[in-house]
Amino acid sequence: MSSSVELLGALAAITTTLCWLPQLFKIVRERQATGISLITTTALASGVFLWCVYGVLIASWPVILANAVTLLFILAIVGLKLRYG
Amino acid sequence: MSSSVELLGALAAITTTLCWLPQLFKIVRERQATGISLITTTALASGVFLWCVYGVLIASWPVILANAVTLLFILAIVGLKLRYG
Repeated sequence: MSSSVELLGALAAITTTLCWLPQLFKIVRERQATGISLITTTALASGVFLWCVYGVLIASWPVILANAVTLLFILAIVGLKLRYG
Repeated sequence: MSSSVELLGALAAITTTLCWLPQLFKIVRERQATGISLITTTALASGVFLWCVYGVLIASWPVILANAVTLLFILAIVGLKLRYG
């Protein structure tokens, strides 16, 4: 596979991982998360966890790493949603 | 690769795709999306679009399909966020 394709995959992974930070900061700043769906956020956390397990099973470090960091951010959002409602 | 590993990957993809529906329904029901970060949602849409392009370049139908459906849901959320604020 060409390195430009790998680079695009890496860019995709970085974008769908770091994109959660503005949402996280917004909840912390406003101290409320009423508009956010708890079902979506917990289902997303479960799905991203499954991606991590899949990454371990296919022994793919990029899949493990990208999803592990995303999982941390999503779990933080779940925690804040439970705290602020 | 064993079929159980493939099955887990499929389950992960289905979960991280369908999880967006409750968020979508919540915004439609409440007619507001103030708690949702527009930066996160548009960055997520861009990232998921990049995953689609990556899927085309590596010729992976599961990657294309899962991300194309997710992109539709995320774009709907972006549209609703722009409409309801």
